[in-house]
Amino acid sequence: MEISAKVIAEHLGGEIVGDPEAKASSVARIESGRPGTLCFLANPKYEHYLYTCKASIILINKTFEPREAVSATLVKVDNAYEAVASLLDLLNALKSERRRGRAFSSRVAWTAKLGKGVYVGAMAYIGKKSRIGKGSQIYPQVYIGDGVTVGENCIIYPGVKVYKGCRIGNNCIIHAGAVIGSDGFGFAPTADGSYKKIPQTGIVTIEDDCEIGANTVIDRSTMGTTLIEKGVKLDNLIQVAHNVTIGSNTVIAAQTGIAGSTKIGRSCMIGGQVGFAGHIHVADKAMIGAQAGIMADVKEEGATLMGSPAIGHKEYMRAYAVFRRNGRGSKNQ
Amino acid sequence: MEISAKVIAEHLGGEIVGDPEAKASSVARIESGRPGTLCFLANPKYEHYLYTCKASIILINKTFEPREAVSATLVKVDNAYEAVASLLDLLNALKSERRRGRAFSSRVAWTAKLGKGVYVGAMAYIGKKSRIGKGSQIYPQVYIGDGVTVGENCIIYPGVKVYKGCRIGNNCIIHAGAVIGSDGFGFAPTADGSYKKIPQTGIVTIEDDCEIGANTVIDRSTMGTTLIEKGVKLDNLIQVAHNVTIGSNTVIAAQTGIAGSTKIGRSCMIGGQVGFAGHIHVADKAMIGAQAGIMADVKEEGATLMGSPAIGHKEYMRAYAVFRRNGRGSKNQ
Amino acid sequence: MEISAKVIAEHLGGEIVGDPEAKASSVARIESGRPGTLCFLANPKYEHYLYTCKASIILINKTFEPREAVSATLVKVDNAYEAVASLLDLLNALKSERRRGRAFSSRVAWTAKLGKGVYVGAMAYIGKKSRIGKGSQIYPQVYIGDGVTVGENCIIYPGVKVYKGCRIGNNCIIHAGAVIGSDGFGFAPTADGSYKKIPQTGIVTIEDDCEIGANTVIDRSTMGTTLIEKGVKLDNLIQVAHNVTIGSNTVIAAQTGIAGSTKIGRSCMIGGQVGFAGHIHVADKAMIGAQAGIMADVKEEGATLMGSPAIGHKEYMRAYAVFRRNGRGSKNQ
Repeated sequence: MEISAKVIAEHLGGEIVGDPEAKASSVARIESGRPGTLCFLANPKYEHYLYTCKASIILINKTFEPREAVSATLVKVDNAYEAVASLLDLLNALKSERRRGRAFSSRVAWTAKLGKGVYVGAMAYIGKKSRIGKGSQIYPQVYIGDGVTVGENCIIYPGVKVYKGCRIGNNCIIHAGAVIGSDGFGFAPTADGSYKKIPQTGIVTIEDDCEIGANTVIDRSTMGTTLIEKGVKLDNLIQVAHNVTIGSNTVIAAQTGIAGSTKIGRSCMIGGQVGFAGHIHVADKAMIGAQAGIMADVKEEGATLMGSPAIGHKEYMRAYAVFRRNGRGSKNQ
Repeated sequence: MEISAKVIAEHLGGEIVGDPEAKASSVARIESGRPGTLCFLANPKYEHYLYTCKASIILINKTFEPREAVSATLVKVDNAYEAVASLLDLLNALKSERRRGRAFSSRVAWTAKLGKGVYVGAMAYIGKKSRIGKGSQIYPQVYIGDGVTVGENCIIYPGVKVYKGCRIGNNCIIHAGAVIGSDGFGFAPTADGSYKKIPQTGIVTIEDDCEIGANTVIDRSTMGTTLIEKGVKLDNLIQVAHNVTIGSNTVIAAQTGIAGSTKIGRSCMIGGQVGFAGHIHVADKAMIGAQAGIMADVKEEGATLMGSPAIGHKEYMRAYAVFRRNGRGSKNQ
Repeated sequence: MEISAKVIAEHLGGEIVGDPEAKASSVARIESGRPGTLCFLANPKYEHYLYTCKASIILINKTFEPREAVSATLVKVDNAYEAVASLLDLLNALKSERRRGRAFSSRVAWTAKLGKGVYVGAMAYIGKKSRIGKGSQIYPQVYIGDGVTVGENCIIYPGVKVYKGCRIGNNCIIHAGAVIGSDGFGFAPTADGSYKKIPQTGIVTIEDDCEIGANTVIDRSTMGTTLIEKGVKLDNLIQVAHNVTIGSNTVIAAQTGIAGSTKIGRSCMIGGQVGFAGHIHVADKAMIGAQAGIMADVKEEGATLMGSPAIGHKEYMRAYAVFRRNGRGSKNQ
C-alpha cells in the first residue's frame, strides 16, 4: 500500500515542498530512511540526518527551515511528531488485531459477565461476579480476581494480575506482568520486635484512558481506594503504594516509586527513578527530573525540581557546578 | 454488622470520651469519615481533619489532647494505629476467604505432596517432589518448581514463580509476580571479551512469617542459600541478589536493591530505592533513608544513614544545606 | 561422587600444594568449608577465612601467597573464580535437566514450528507462525506471541512474556517474569491536556548468548527494533525503553533504567540502579558506578563515571569528600 505526499498533506492539513507524487509504503527512522519510506524530523538533535536521508517523504514542523538541500519531498505540518502518530493510527486501523471469543482453556466463573465482543485468551482466569466491558481484550494467562470491573475496549496483556474488587475504566491498556491491587505495605511493630500485618481492605481504581506499563505494581488501599485518575500514563516497573492518588493526565517514567498516601497533582511530568516520600502533596503540573527525591510537599504549580532531596532545577544545577568544581582540586576550600 | 464504642473500648482496653452507644459499621479514612463509620488519627499531620470529621467513632492515642471540639465519640487507646489493625483483623476473620481443593486445570506432579486443606488454583503448576504444607493457598497460575518446600498457612498469590529446590517457611505471604530462586548474576570474563556463566547451584530459603511484595525478585545462591530470615517484610519490586542474607524482622521498602553476598542485620528499617553494594555487612537496627547508596560496611548498631555514598543523617542534611546554599548564587565561592 | 585434588589440578591445569589425594564431593563457600568440600578464594577480602577453613581442597590464584598455614590442599590456578565455574559446569553436565516434549495443557498454534528436542511446558502459549529452534526449553506459563522467533538451545523460564514479532537468538536465557516487546512509552500531548498514544510498531531483537534477568522489561521500538546485541547480560528488574541499543558483551546490574533511543556501547560495565537519559550515546567499555545518572553523551572509551549528573569517578569522590566535610560543621563556609 503506497501513499503519496499529496494524500498525506491533505490528510494532515500540511504543505508540500517538492514532488507531490512522491510515494511511501512504510515508515522508517530518519537515520535509516530508504527510498519508498516516510520519515519525520521532530527532535532538532537529528537535523543532520535530514540532509543525507534517502527517504521519499519527510514530515517536518512548519517552523523548521532546512539549512541545506534535502532530497526528499517535505510535508510541513504543525507538529511532525503528532502527525506521524496520526498516520500510524491510520495504518494500524487497516490491519487491526482485535480478537474475539473465549478460549476453551480459559477459566471464567459462572457469575462473571462478559460484554459483547470480549476476547478471553487461553489459560486466562476470571473470578466470581467480575464484569468485563464490551470489546475488551483479555490476553492469555491474565488473572482477574473476584468482583473486578474492567470497562470497555480495554487491552489487558498476558500475565497481568488484578486482585479482587479492583476497578478499571474504559479504554485502558495494561501491559504484561503488571500487578493491580496487591496488599499495601503496612505493618505495626509489636513488643517483641516482630511486625503485625495491617489488613489492606481497600481497592485500586483506575479511571478511563490510562496506560499502565509492564511489571508496574499498584497496591490496594488500606481502606477506600488507591486512585489513578483519567488519562494517567505510567511506564514500566513503577511502584504505586497504598492510598496514593495520581491526578489526571499525569505521566510518569519508568522505575519511579510513590510511597503511601501521597497525592500527585494533575498534568505532572515525572521522570524515571524518582522517589516520592509518603503523605505528601505534589501540586499540579509539577515537572520532576529523573532520579529526584521528593521528600516534602511541592506547593507551587508547575514547579521544576531536581536532586535528592529535590530543590529547584536551576538552583540544583548551580549547586552541582560548585560541588563539581570542588572535585577538581581547586583551592577555594 | 454494627459495633458500639463501648464494645470497641472493651475489646481494645480503651477509654471513651462521648457517647458509649455511638455505632459504626465500616471503617473510613479520617478525611472522609461519614456518620456510621469508624476513623482513626495516628499521624498528627492529619489532626485538622479531626475537627471536621463526621464519623461516629474516632480512635486516638491516649497521649493526644484535641485542641478543638470534636463531634465524634472518641476511643482513646495506647496506639491507635495498632488498634485499628486489631479491629480490622476481627472484621476480616468474620469474612475469611480461605479456599480449599485442587482446580482441575492445575498440574500437580504425582510425587508432590499436598497437606490438609491446601488450595491449588486453576492453571497452577507444582513440580516433582515438592511439598505444600497444610492450609496453604496456591493461587491460579503460580509456578512451583521441582523439590520446592512451602510451609503451612502460606498464601502464594497469582503468577508467583518459585524455581526448583527453594524453601519457604510457615505463614509466609508472597505477592503476585514475585520470582524466587532465579539465577544469581554471575559471569566470569573470558579472553575474547565475552562472559561465561557461573552456574548458580544454590537455593533461596525464606523463613517463617515473611511477606514478599509483588514483582520482587530473590536470586538463588551460587552455592548454599540466599537467606531471608524469620519475620522479614519486603515491599514490591525489590532486588535481592545471590548469597545475600537479610536478618530477622528487617523491613525494606519498595525498589531497593541488594547486591551479591551482602548481609543485612536484624530489625533494620530500610527506605525505598536504596542500593547496597556487594560483599558488605550492615549492623542490626540500622535505619537507612530512601535512595541512599550503602557502599561500605555499616558497623554501628542503629546507625541512621542517608545519601550516596551514605553518611550520617544529620551530617548529610547539614552538608546538603551548604550544597543548596551554593546554588543560590552566594558569594562564598 | 568424589574428585581428588590431582584430578582437579589436571582438569584445570593447576598446581598442587599439599596432599594430591585429598578428596571433595561438594562445593562450599570459604566461610563454611567442612572436610570433604572444595572451596575457592577469589576475593582477597575473604583471605582471613583461608586460615581457618576446614575444607579438603581450596582453589586459589597462582599469584596469591598465603601468609599463614593452611590446613587444606591448595590447587593454584590462573583464575580461581573461572576455575570454579568450569568445575561446576562439569558437575552440572552430569546431572543435566534438559526436558523434552510438549505438555498436553500447553497451547501451540497450528502454524507455529517447533524444532527437534524442544520442550514446551504446561500452560505455555505459542502463537501463530512463531518458530522455536531446536533444543530450546519453554517452561510452564510462558507466553510467546504471534510471529516470534526463538533460536536454538534457549531457556525461557516460567511466566516470561514475549510480545508478537520479537526475535531471540541462540543460547539465550530469559528469567521468570521478564517482558519482551511491550509498547514503548510514547505519547503526544494534545490541546486539551490529555495524551495520544503513539503506536509502537517495531520489535525487540535479542542476539545470541544473551541473558535477561527476572522481571526485566524491554520495550519494542516505535519503528525498527530495540536491539540487544550478542553476549549482553542484563540482571533483574531492568528497564530498557524503546529504540535503545545495547552493544555486545555489555553487562548491566539490577534495577538500571535506559530511556528511549539511547545507545550503550560494547563491553560496558554498568552498576545497579543507574539511570540513562534518552537520546544519548555511551562509548564502548564505559564503567558506570551504581546509582549514577547519565544525562549526556559519554564520549571517552573506558570512561569511569559516578554521581548524578555523573562525572568522573575520582572527581566525584573528591567533590563528595568536600561535601561531606561541610556536613561536619567546619568553618570553611
